[in-house]
Amino acid sequence: QSNATIYGRMNLSIERQKDGGVSNTVMQNNASRIGFKGTEDLGGGLKAGFVLEHGFNADTGAASGAMWGRQSELNLSGGFGMVRLGRYTSEAYFATADYVSMHNHDTGTSADALYAYIDRDSNKLAYRTPDLGGLTLEAAVSLRENVGNYAYDVAANYDMGALQLGAGYQKDGDANQFALRALYTMGDFTFGGYVQRDEDVYGPGSRTNLRLSGMYTMGASEFHLNVGRAGDYSDLDDSAATQYTLAYGYNLSKRTKAYAFYTKVSADSANPYVGDFSSFALGLRHNF
Amino acid sequence: QSNATIYGRMNLSIERQKDGGVSNTVMQNNASRIGFKGTEDLGGGLKAGFVLEHGFNADTGAASGAMWGRQSELNLSGGFGMVRLGRYTSEAYFATADYVSMHNHDTGTSADALYAYIDRDSNKLAYRTPDLGGLTLEAAVSLRENVGNYAYDVAANYDMGALQLGAGYQKDGDANQFALRALYTMGDFTFGGYVQRDEDVYGPGSRTNLRLSGMYTMGASEFHLNVGRAGDYSDLDDSAATQYTLAYGYNLSKRTKAYAFYTKVSADSANPYVGDFSSFALGLRHNF
Amino acid sequence: QSNATIYGRMNLSIERQKDGGVSNTVMQNNASRIGFKGTEDLGGGLKAGFVLEHGFNADTGAASGAMWGRQSELNLSGGFGMVRLGRYTSEAYFATADYVSMHNHDTGTSADALYAYIDRDSNKLAYRTPDLGGLTLEAAVSLRENVGNYAYDVAANYDMGALQLGAGYQKDGDANQFALRALYTMGDFTFGGYVQRDEDVYGPGSRTNLRLSGMYTMGASEFHLNVGRAGDYSDLDDSAATQYTLAYGYNLSKRTKAYAFYTKVSADSANPYVGDFSSFALGLRHNF
Repeated sequence: QSNATIYGRMNLSIERQKDGGVSNTVMQNNASRIGFKGTEDLGGGLKAGFVLEHGFNADTGAASGAMWGRQSELNLSGGFGMVRLGRYTSEAYFATADYVSMHNHDTGTSADALYAYIDRDSNKLAYRTPDLGGLTLEAAVSLRENVGNYAYDVAANYDMGALQLGAGYQKDGDANQFALRALYTMGDFTFGGYVQRDEDVYGPGSRTNLRLSGMYTMGASEFHLNVGRAGDYSDLDDSAATQYTLAYGYNLSKRTKAYAFYTKVSADSANPYVGDFSSFALGLRHNF
Repeated sequence: QSNATIYGRMNLSIERQKDGGVSNTVMQNNASRIGFKGTEDLGGGLKAGFVLEHGFNADTGAASGAMWGRQSELNLSGGFGMVRLGRYTSEAYFATADYVSMHNHDTGTSADALYAYIDRDSNKLAYRTPDLGGLTLEAAVSLRENVGNYAYDVAANYDMGALQLGAGYQKDGDANQFALRALYTMGDFTFGGYVQRDEDVYGPGSRTNLRLSGMYTMGASEFHLNVGRAGDYSDLDDSAATQYTLAYGYNLSKRTKAYAFYTKVSADSANPYVGDFSSFALGLRHNF
Repeated sequence: QSNATIYGRMNLSIERQKDGGVSNTVMQNNASRIGFKGTEDLGGGLKAGFVLEHGFNADTGAASGAMWGRQSELNLSGGFGMVRLGRYTSEAYFATADYVSMHNHDTGTSADALYAYIDRDSNKLAYRTPDLGGLTLEAAVSLRENVGNYAYDVAANYDMGALQLGAGYQKDGDANQFALRALYTMGDFTFGGYVQRDEDVYGPGSRTNLRLSGMYTMGASEFHLNVGRAGDYSDLDDSAATQYTLAYGYNLSKRTKAYAFYTKVSADSANPYVGDFSSFALGLRHNF
């Protein structure tokens, strides 16, 4: 008779990593989490809902960040759309980079290392439109609370059936980023990609970041290819980077997947946000 | 088939605050919490029970204080009453200040800023009588564990129907406080108040603190007025303070309430425990 | 409709302790914990499972150690046995010291103070055999992750009905320990014991540690006697220690037990891991 549901994900892999020049065998946590959520029907189409999501390092048992750092949200929704209060991940990110990260859900060492994320997830007030014939818009403001400035997060998702489009914009002071995303499904093939333009997020000046991904499913098997390329920051030479990932997943059930991947990040000498890195991984992901 | 029930409350408001001379717009957490509790029927009227309650800042996702700082209790109850072990909030407080704080449940910026609370909630052993014809008594001791002294917490609640009375006493070394409370219900009106005498809790010497509150309910609406006045500490001139709150609540359901309030604290120049503060708030409280 | 079950234990006692020369009355936490676990049937005898277990001090509400420091495990099991990933307690310990600690489950002040435990519970990969006619084997390696060395944990359990045998081995660098355990049930009597040989775990050189325990059950009552003796470390004179515990438990239900015990640790003058200590305890343990 609880009004809350428990949910979560355990995702661990054994990886052979090469970080800079050093090789190592590690147990890698891939954004494991446990959460509690619920909704209450208030009548007249109105609903109240909450989500509390805790991230942890499944390899050591330690919390990662704040207790409910992944999500701490209270919302009210109805015919008018949804109002959201608290702490939650950027919708601009979900509409673009996360949307095309089909292998391992953008977690762990094969996560998108090049996407520019502006991290102002707390003290956030958002409005999401209802479904407008396939189109959904969301705009959020992070209150400044006498420290720094207001930050903004805007996202659009447009579902045209086989073709799905998205856009995201974030701004926090001088730092800002804008991205466009497309995902196209053709039978067992899915192709996606985004292009992002950011300013002063990880380096000085502006930068273009492009990513393409593809998935082919065959029964319980998934085959993935994912390639990203971020150019130089305009005011920092030799700051470009490339990442590619080859992955195979086998769905033991809807909730549980065994997987293997190889990922490699190559960074130019003055890159301020990533270094040379590669990993071969064998993993298990279990949703509950 | 769990023996534990999940419960909690998300309570967030958007507030325009004036703190000292500085105005600010903030997202305010109001004592959000999540907990786990259960009871086991042992037969013969005997029951074992536990409560674990975690407080957090819903605006940032961070834990507030110790993991189970709000409550960590194991108890055994039966015809003899109840024995409680662990950490839990003062029953003297529940019997008095909390009882009359009908708007927003004594949380957030409109919480009672003047009540003298003696915080020794850990390592506590309590005995609560059964219902003695409307009267319930509880006495608790916080073990000293070789640090400082024993602390005491005593409470009485007397339910006479429309009129409900309470009293609370706490002592920790020199610091002590005693309060008497009454609450009277007359149709849609509820009136309450307490008077407290404390010594050395927030300032040197003794002080009298008085609070009156009233609520009028009309359908799903609640109207609240709440006024408190704490005099000077006997050994500290200009240490008095006043607080008043006007509040409106609309119950979207039994579990979910939207509300607005204005609260104002005015403190004399040498007040050691509060400063000038005011806030206008719009909030949403959701129990689960 | 959650895929996770909540479970846990609250275990608190009021104790009169004498630590060195100092007497004190304390509320004692005895390894209280709350956890979440679940298994998913993947078909064909295959199962995925997880356990997340959080330890806390029930007397103060504070977390003890890492959030999921007691257990953070993802596993896959089937006819081949079980593969386990994450953080979890040594199986060598469960097969020996824990197995014979029948009073209060090896928690709190009456816990086995002399057993040599090698603490490398994180980043662990284990394989457990299926039941081989009463015999189960488990071997685990803790990855070094470029810090220190690999650590190993090996355990065997052999169930012959009334007689149950076990063995455990751990190694982390120079430190290592090996133990053999037997438990014999004869009607209402249960007798158990282990002998352990360790090197460099708590002191320099090697040491022999022996423990014997007995339980007699009569209806809801349990009577316990538990005696341990650890000799000198070979390179440290006067480092021996003795521990004995007398305990009585009354099972209010399968889940809830009231108990009393007296425990006493006597340590020689140069003992590096325990000191003189005694405690008389009255406690309540509630599983949920």
